[in-house]
Amino acid sequence: MEKLKCTISYDGTLFSGYQIQPNKRTVQGEIEAVLQTMHKGKFIRIHSSGRTDAGVHARHQVIHFETGLHIRTENWQKALNAQLPDDIVVHDVERVDAQFHARFSAIEKEYRYFVLLTDTRDVFLRNYRYMTTDEFDDANMQEACDVFKGTHDFTAFSSARATVKGDKVRTLYEVTFERRANELMFMLRGNGFLYHMVRIIVSVILDAGKSIVSPEEIKTMFITKNRGNIGQTLPPQGLYLWDVKYN
Amino acid sequence: MEKLKCTISYDGTLFSGYQIQPNKRTVQGEIEAVLQTMHKGKFIRIHSSGRTDAGVHARHQVIHFETGLHIRTENWQKALNAQLPDDIVVHDVERVDAQFHARFSAIEKEYRYFVLLTDTRDVFLRNYRYMTTDEFDDANMQEACDVFKGTHDFTAFSSARATVKGDKVRTLYEVTFERRANELMFMLRGNGFLYHMVRIIVSVILDAGKSIVSPEEIKTMFITKNRGNIGQTLPPQGLYLWDVKYN
Repeated sequence: MEKLKCTISYDGTLFSGYQIQPNKRTVQGEIEAVLQTMHKGKFIRIHSSGRTDAGVHARHQVIHFETGLHIRTENWQKALNAQLPDDIVVHDVERVDAQFHARFSAIEKEYRYFVLLTDTRDVFLRNYRYMTTDEFDDANMQEACDVFKGTHDFTAFSSARATVKGDKVRTLYEVTFERRANELMFMLRGNGFLYHMVRIIVSVILDAGKSIVSPEEIKTMFITKNRGNIGQTLPPQGLYLWDVKYN
Repeated sequence: MEKLKCTISYDGTLFSGYQIQPNKRTVQGEIEAVLQTMHKGKFIRIHSSGRTDAGVHARHQVIHFETGLHIRTENWQKALNAQLPDDIVVHDVERVDAQFHARFSAIEKEYRYFVLLTDTRDVFLRNYRYMTTDEFDDANMQEACDVFKGTHDFTAFSSARATVKGDKVRTLYEVTFERRANELMFMLRGNGFLYHMVRIIVSVILDAGKSIVSPEEIKTMFITKNRGNIGQTLPPQGLYLWDVKYN
């Protein structure tokens, strides 16, 4: 038996999310189906760095699985890509130690969220950007980004539907945005993320950009663990799991 | 009654082409359905500058129709966009003379075809680019572009399934390509295009880039009206109707 780590991308548009569910098209389901065929009917469980929701994309997701097949590492990529649907692609396959785990060994994740500022919808980007006609003040957004940086209890900035046990303290190493022509790109890098955390934080930053919430009010939310009506979860199609890092 | 000219975009991915067909999702069908609702059940025929095939995109397509509704021109765009599906959008609506016809008044059309040069498929561009691992020589492609420029009988470079009556002489004002990082962008501007003509011409130029066909051989094809096995029609997803011009 050997353990393989794969780096993959997927377009989340036509998936009911990453995680396998009965009678739904999922990323995990598609990959496990291909592996089962390759292993002549034997079921192979895959493990990812974490789930992504329906409509959320992955530029760089990591999975691992164990296999008894005798295929050279360099041929695994071709074999998988030949059978996977065209909205999932494998970029890299490498052999890893038995201790490696796609989720538990990850030390850092990066997410990006893209906002298209436009009066008229862009038909070609409808599945890849959140579009809005709103206007945002850069200085206010910068201040809000800075408030989110660092180690905090992010209870107020995760979905109440979260199933995570244990504490909700996470560290964000970087929270930035870049304005490029008619687009805003948000980048969040941290040691872990709660359910809906990126889509909520970016939404709060956008609310700050519209002067609906101040940096002081955001700081208070960390303590009260309640963000009220601020930061409605943004739609999934603007969100990309951008990178996962291991030691 | 007034005649309205609309400039629209659509993402061709989920359409069985522009032209209405029974039990298929088409661009014309979607727009006519919205107009029928707006006209309280009265059927309104729309006319376009020309059809596009299944999977082909339009950055800038033009349609016209006649209406007896009393809606201010500036409100038409909003009314249509509010009801159209999110893969069609109206950019502009203007009132035109009774003589205007989206197809017959057009004096020039521009198409673009995008080729992504990549070893690994890009999941986010699968519906928007033709992807290939082939390599192409720029000087050879430039020579081939130059051969297509001008006034020719394009019989050899259109589909045998073409239903066009009359001659197949057309004038191409411009045939160019641009290499940008890992992408080739082809641009064809002319007074008219035959069925599959852009996808065939770009394919012949790519074949020239692979040294499968020479400029002299292409010139001969104009005369023999037969291109043999050269220039297999390229897939639709790389093609965009880019612009339509009127006097």
